[in-house]
Amino acid sequence: MIIDVINCFDFAGADVLEPKARKAAHVIAGLRSEMARKGYPTIFINDNFGEWHSERSRLVERALAKPNPVAELLRPCREDYFIIKPQFSGFYATNLPVLLPKLGVSRLILTGIATDICVLFTAADAHMRDYALWVPCDAVAAEDDARGAFSLATMSAVMGAETQASGNLSLSKWTARLDEAGIAGVPSRRISMG
Amino acid sequence: MIIDVINCFDFAGADVLEPKARKAAHVIAGLRSEMARKGYPTIFINDNFGEWHSERSRLVERALAKPNPVAELLRPCREDYFIIKPQFSGFYATNLPVLLPKLGVSRLILTGIATDICVLFTAADAHMRDYALWVPCDAVAAEDDARGAFSLATMSAVMGAETQASGNLSLSKWTARLDEAGIAGVPSRRISMG
Amino acid sequence: MIIDVINCFDFAGADVLEPKARKAAHVIAGLRSEMARKGYPTIFINDNFGEWHSERSRLVERALAKPNPVAELLRPCREDYFIIKPQFSGFYATNLPVLLPKLGVSRLILTGIATDICVLFTAADAHMRDYALWVPCDAVAAEDDARGAFSLATMSAVMGAETQASGNLSLSKWTARLDEAGIAGVPSRRISMG
Amino acid sequence: MIIDVINCFDFAGADVLEPKARKAAHVIAGLRSEMARKGYPTIFINDNFGEWHSERSRLVERALAKPNPVAELLRPCREDYFIIKPQFSGFYATNLPVLLPKLGVSRLILTGIATDICVLFTAADAHMRDYALWVPCDAVAAEDDARGAFSLATMSAVMGAETQASGNLSLSKWTARLDEAGIAGVPSRRISMG
Repeated sequence: MIIDVINCFDFAGADVLEPKARKAAHVIAGLRSEMARKGYPTIFINDNFGEWHSERSRLVERALAKPNPVAELLRPCREDYFIIKPQFSGFYATNLPVLLPKLGVSRLILTGIATDICVLFTAADAHMRDYALWVPCDAVAAEDDARGAFSLATMSAVMGAETQASGNLSLSKWTARLDEAGIAGVPSRRISMG
Repeated sequence: MIIDVINCFDFAGADVLEPKARKAAHVIAGLRSEMARKGYPTIFINDNFGEWHSERSRLVERALAKPNPVAELLRPCREDYFIIKPQFSGFYATNLPVLLPKLGVSRLILTGIATDICVLFTAADAHMRDYALWVPCDAVAAEDDARGAFSLATMSAVMGAETQASGNLSLSKWTARLDEAGIAGVPSRRISMG
Repeated sequence: MIIDVINCFDFAGADVLEPKARKAAHVIAGLRSEMARKGYPTIFINDNFGEWHSERSRLVERALAKPNPVAELLRPCREDYFIIKPQFSGFYATNLPVLLPKLGVSRLILTGIATDICVLFTAADAHMRDYALWVPCDAVAAEDDARGAFSLATMSAVMGAETQASGNLSLSKWTARLDEAGIAGVPSRRISMG
Repeated sequence: MIIDVINCFDFAGADVLEPKARKAAHVIAGLRSEMARKGYPTIFINDNFGEWHSERSRLVERALAKPNPVAELLRPCREDYFIIKPQFSGFYATNLPVLLPKLGVSRLILTGIATDICVLFTAADAHMRDYALWVPCDAVAAEDDARGAFSLATMSAVMGAETQASGNLSLSKWTARLDEAGIAGVPSRRISMG
């Protein structure tokens, strides 16, 4: 899941966040390719920035009206899942709670911006729905570094999220670890009626 | 609110529903103009038909790939609100629960198809959130007339919805009646803290 | 799931509904015993009747203040799951969406009152979450028989719900049928990441 | 709103959190009296601790099975609102989203434990629903002081929450400030249809 990267960076503090987001974007692009090679879905989760037209091309267009390395690097493909969120959390008032069960996934990798806002609150909602989480610390960015670090510490301590950099942990190692620990993400104790 | 009119009518039973939908579409078009004149917002609420790209233009395009009087008549304008729903109800897993409070509305007119599915379950969710409802019986359509009539009777009896035809009741008469009855829609007993 | 049987029957029309509810209650009691024998959970889903104390014993007490065959017959046991709902649907603003995945169930039997209100709208919400449904027509009751019958027809046609009487269909036959049809309830296409 | 104070303090780290919670409990008790005097509602929001019986008296009983100054001091009265939550946030899968509009409140005071978990994520959900927030820093407690402080800083920066100690800010001053700033909490721009 890639959060809020189709972004105009026109808010207060964006000048501080943008260069960090650019660095994270390169890491995200790498993860995205790896996911695609392995056949795993990529889901964009993006703010509507106050527009209610459900037209992702207009969001992309607006972001690309000026030079925008982050949006250029992470432009969604025609076949990518794209979820428009009106608030911080990717789960609140969006299609996501229906899409994820349809995909059958129980493990989520969260990337994007900002670590201490949309990433943190999307992670909390994912954890409350029993998804296992990896939030690679090099694939997220925050305007305030201390708040970013704190958020990662909270996700690790409170939600059991993995937060290692994607440089230090491979996708297959992460999933192998969860398998060993018997963590399916979504609860495995299933009383299949009949 | 206009439900599921951007529709390919390519499902079983569509041949029965489409002519009725066309009739309703003319009524909806009239209501839409009146709403626009009075400055009230129109919200399209449309199925994603199994696509998760959040791109309304692709939904419209697909519907207009063949001659389609309903979609042609009710084509959304650039500035119309457009909500993509993945299931029957317009409130489930959509932006709608955030948009409606931002618009500040407490009264909803529901139109579209099908009366006994998406209209009925959207109405139920609206009623559970304390919205006052008008579902003009001439602005909705169902494949099965008996189920359509029953659904309208249920909305009237169980949700207190007005179901008179828009030919028999004007917008201003409806709102005047709610005002007289002291029905704000959203509950009026408000303890404003401080 | 047993809906709204802890009920004072003190509303308009309750005198019509109560005798029918009593008949259904006997059927529900039988199903409940069978479920218990097979180790399947029973979940009570009950209206809060305008009280917000989250104290089921007070709801039971209030219902039993007067002779009340339905509530007496279906009194919850200490270990039964009990969900308090503030509106029609058992899924709206309740603990249910968290409890069901924890139980790991994908198939639900809906019973209780009233067929055309709380049963119908709980069924719709269950269907939107991909649960397979059985609503035994002899284990539900409605004040208005025509609306009850229509609601069952809608659940069957629109939600793929089984609605046969529990006298004509056994629990094991129902689950065998779903197994044959490859209907897990919750979608079976699962991309298990890694 | 008083979060998770009916608590057995039997988890890892509870020995660190409990003395801080006790201190906060005295502040909360003072605020609760003041709220009661002014006629404002108090809402307990409490974890179900893995039980699904919707019986608050059993939660209270369990907490009071051993000496427990926090639960003794803040024992709910018969008429207090009591919401049982199955996860971190008071808004997720609970009656709260229905109760708050019925009370008509647009401003919330959040107190209780733990600042960096249930308080933080309840605050996020409240903010996403447009409630104005005061999280008095002396009425909350966290096991880890740094994470507690960070959480308060996040609520202030990201959600516009007031976080001053209740010793330094009175209820009437807070509401006066919101009034001056024209902050109703719930959006004031209301197009009342008709």
